[in-house]
Amino acid sequence: MNYYPEIVQKLIEKLEKLPGIGPKSAERIVNFLIEEDEKNVISLAENLISLKKEVKLCQKCFNLSDKEICNICSDEKRENIICVVEEVKDLVLIEKTGFKGKYHVLWGRISMLEKVYPSDLKIPQLIERLKNENIEEVIIATNPTPEGEDTAMYISDILKKMNIKHSRLAIGIPLGSEIEYIDVNTLKKSIEGRKIL
Amino acid sequence: MNYYPEIVQKLIEKLEKLPGIGPKSAERIVNFLIEEDEKNVISLAENLISLKKEVKLCQKCFNLSDKEICNICSDEKRENIICVVEEVKDLVLIEKTGFKGKYHVLWGRISMLEKVYPSDLKIPQLIERLKNENIEEVIIATNPTPEGEDTAMYISDILKKMNIKHSRLAIGIPLGSEIEYIDVNTLKKSIEGRKIL
Repeated sequence: MNYYPEIVQKLIEKLEKLPGIGPKSAERIVNFLIEEDEKNVISLAENLISLKKEVKLCQKCFNLSDKEICNICSDEKRENIICVVEEVKDLVLIEKTGFKGKYHVLWGRISMLEKVYPSDLKIPQLIERLKNENIEEVIIATNPTPEGEDTAMYISDILKKMNIKHSRLAIGIPLGSEIEYIDVNTLKKSIEGRKIL
Repeated sequence: MNYYPEIVQKLIEKLEKLPGIGPKSAERIVNFLIEEDEKNVISLAENLISLKKEVKLCQKCFNLSDKEICNICSDEKRENIICVVEEVKDLVLIEKTGFKGKYHVLWGRISMLEKVYPSDLKIPQLIERLKNENIEEVIIATNPTPEGEDTAMYISDILKKMNIKHSRLAIGIPLGSEIEYIDVNTLKKSIEGRKIL
């Protein structure tokens, strides 16, 4: 049974499908939108449409872009290092660190459980790129999760065969954390990777 | 500095303004939408527009409605009891309990701190309604928060002067909860409101 007018009910159902939004937050968002200025809501709707119409993936690195080739790939000052990430949001975070190399966005991670295979990701395109571009090093910056590690291993195996220098982000205890609350495996990795002072 | 194409950045900023969505979830939603079918995203956008164009407030009880008077208010089988709630989502929850009376949605609660006064809410309209409709009882179902209690007290004072029978939802320990985890004030209210068996 529907307790809301049909349009409201449909919108709630659509919002619920977005990541991180449950039934309660969908209801709260609709309530907010009902009270919000009409022009703001229409501008949000138009923005959603232009997202699908105008934003595409960079043909080189698969970053989001409004052009065929993204700003980072067209920047000639960038170093010939490729940082491989799972998602665009990882690229954005690494950009914020001041990293001056290029990227390659995989759009996911290998997962046998979820039936995501290397060919479902932008891995073939990475290999193709490495054949054509003169790259000094590949930094594999997939997440330190089981799936991210599997993906890193898979890419590392290929790069070894291609004889391309590659590295993995350091695993360790985060700045500002307390060792007491760090899990044992992270701590173990952090000891293994210790730096001589 | 913008790390995303302008359209993406703008959309993230707009999503961040929605309740319960922070910068991280806004990014995650945009990533999801990028990969989502174009037709689904456009249908979401259209739904947002029709929300603003077609959904209005019931002229009687201020429930959401696609007509001047909502389905509940036009239902002649409903009892002449008005349940006063802060938000439409409270109305929806009370409907699910099988309540067969009518409603009045205040669209908020009195809050001196947030400068929300009785006239900012649908309280004058409630009083007007009570003058014209033949109502047997008003159930004040505002939240048991300080603001909700203030609002309830304010309405109760008016109803006393108007000589209209009114009640407040029972405060007590929720079904399925463990007394160990209930706060002292709730427990106190629950003892005060105990039922003789």
